[in-house]
Amino acid sequence: MSQSFEFHIKASDGAARMGEIRTPRGIIRTPAFMPVGTAATVKAMHPEEVRETGADIILGNTYHLMLRPGAERMERLGGLHKFMNWPGPILTDSGGYQVMSLSKLRKISEEGVTFQSHIDGAEHMLSPEASITIQRQLGSDIIMAFDECTPFPASQDEARKSMELSMRWAVRSKKAFDENPGSSALFGIVQGGIYEDLRLDSIAALKVLDFHGLAIGGLAVGEGQAEMFRVLDFTMPQMPAELPRYLMGVGKPDDMVGAVMRGIDMFDCVLPTRSGRTGQAFTSRGTINIKNARHRDDNAPLDENCECATCRDYGRAYLHHLVKSEEILGAMLMTRHNLTFYQNLMANLRNAIGEGNLESFDDTFLKAYSGE
Amino acid sequence: MSQSFEFHIKASDGAARMGEIRTPRGIIRTPAFMPVGTAATVKAMHPEEVRETGADIILGNTYHLMLRPGAERMERLGGLHKFMNWPGPILTDSGGYQVMSLSKLRKISEEGVTFQSHIDGAEHMLSPEASITIQRQLGSDIIMAFDECTPFPASQDEARKSMELSMRWAVRSKKAFDENPGSSALFGIVQGGIYEDLRLDSIAALKVLDFHGLAIGGLAVGEGQAEMFRVLDFTMPQMPAELPRYLMGVGKPDDMVGAVMRGIDMFDCVLPTRSGRTGQAFTSRGTINIKNARHRDDNAPLDENCECATCRDYGRAYLHHLVKSEEILGAMLMTRHNLTFYQNLMANLRNAIGEGNLESFDDTFLKAYSGE
Repeated sequence: MSQSFEFHIKASDGAARMGEIRTPRGIIRTPAFMPVGTAATVKAMHPEEVRETGADIILGNTYHLMLRPGAERMERLGGLHKFMNWPGPILTDSGGYQVMSLSKLRKISEEGVTFQSHIDGAEHMLSPEASITIQRQLGSDIIMAFDECTPFPASQDEARKSMELSMRWAVRSKKAFDENPGSSALFGIVQGGIYEDLRLDSIAALKVLDFHGLAIGGLAVGEGQAEMFRVLDFTMPQMPAELPRYLMGVGKPDDMVGAVMRGIDMFDCVLPTRSGRTGQAFTSRGTINIKNARHRDDNAPLDENCECATCRDYGRAYLHHLVKSEEILGAMLMTRHNLTFYQNLMANLRNAIGEGNLESFDDTFLKAYSGE
Repeated sequence: MSQSFEFHIKASDGAARMGEIRTPRGIIRTPAFMPVGTAATVKAMHPEEVRETGADIILGNTYHLMLRPGAERMERLGGLHKFMNWPGPILTDSGGYQVMSLSKLRKISEEGVTFQSHIDGAEHMLSPEASITIQRQLGSDIIMAFDECTPFPASQDEARKSMELSMRWAVRSKKAFDENPGSSALFGIVQGGIYEDLRLDSIAALKVLDFHGLAIGGLAVGEGQAEMFRVLDFTMPQMPAELPRYLMGVGKPDDMVGAVMRGIDMFDCVLPTRSGRTGQAFTSRGTINIKNARHRDDNAPLDENCECATCRDYGRAYLHHLVKSEEILGAMLMTRHNLTFYQNLMANLRNAIGEGNLESFDDTFLKAYSGE
């Protein structure tokens, strides 16, 4: 294992854990939310602003970056951190999820996936080995094993075949990683859909591979919150306690609170950034659509309980005007608020775990958030 | 005249002047460039960033703001400064120019202009009295008289009729302003197209009306730089020396240098902001199109001589990537650089006038800027 990657649990409350991941590029306080920086930018945000929201780490998308600007070019230019002026830790996904959702003319085999770029139609290939190489060229701090995200719904047979392929790819990912570990960490990804025996088989397969952390993949793909929590309920107790646990692509604020209570340490999701560009704001009393005419004459901030610069300096009427006028500043201000809301939620969860009152926090948060 | 609006010339060099305009909301160093904040936002910029580029004052567009969010709503919400979080001075145009260029189904009469909104087709009216009222509702610090921007080309007869209408509207604008001057200032606008006798007649008509400043309108509308300078050459010597002189809608960096040498004190133009969104950067060695493939592998900043945060933190390869990928951050970073370039040019012009070496600055600047 890499000497420079360490996970310390500082407090726990039920199944929930509060701690920190130490990396050569800085500390990640957990539970952590990672803003998504798809194309080497957290959309509509200066990196200094991303940091100011409280983010310790961001996520980069291997699929997008390998197509544009290209992994070899990124390496020549000095790596993703320098390129985008983000000196902190970066986790990169493996490209497996987006090659299936975005690319054209995919062909999947035991070796990997060949596909055409959604940008210019050029043919590319991703395999466990190629994905690890590309993530290294980008300069990733936390590299993800190459996997297939099992679609939902999938029969048990389909889910097993998909999971078993991902487990063979996990072995190859680990081997490729170990040939040149550097100072990066490597996370494995648990698959198995909604099936308990498959999830447990997947964990068993990954446990022996000595990853720095484990992710839960294949959730938040349409199964709904109750089903997701049901899967976490039987999956989480089997996860190695000493490794950070990352729930990929999640989620809504209430999803994250429930997942933290079940033992998740890390999240990523496009929701706060994407919503920020379409006029949806997250607040302590639930979401609001700023385009709604009722905000047109309202000088109140998005969230009375928020101390972000958007809420400090601007009223809803102005944000309504900007978003309705399709002004770039609307996306900038809304995204800044939403990311602050997400990071504040993580900070509040960490505090609640530290103080041993997570259940009470959960109760209070959900009541206010659902508008009760 | 308003007690609180003062213009002090601190140095001059040939026809050029360096000084400051004092307003209740702050000092405007001249020569000054006013970034355009059309719809209550300097596009893709936080107002704090606009200030950091060196801007003392911004411009708001009456036409856009009266349609959305509406002048009465803006007044109810506390005015434009509070709405958009810009505490410094704001100059508003009269709406006359944009009602002619943007609106549908215009009908112009002695009384004013009726037109349909380009946004929702609703019918509106602008007249000298309406424009002054609306600019007051917005909370403008420098209000512009309502005029008709004479099109180019125009025959001498057309230009005279248009100018004379604008002069009658100037009288009505002044009367409407004087009924409730408050702490704002009012600028008149010289028209007359490219015709010397018309420009001089226009100045004579405005001189007696005791404006706080005079603008030159009807230039930068297609006549070209040489013709614009020719018009300034016969117009500027007739302008009252004690008033600030504002060249509306100008311009390119070399336009502004030439205009300052002829005695202009204030400018506004969408060029640095609009160009920033389409990938054109202004540099000390001329303009560059960042989308050009030759920047794809170049870690050098946009301008080696620029100290803006964009040039400090990012290379051309990254900006190329962002603009090609249509990322919002591309517009943010490019606009910040361009506005900094414009404000640095103004600061350099002020210094050169103060030191009495404007001619030498002009020579050096234009040689580098034209790539000689």
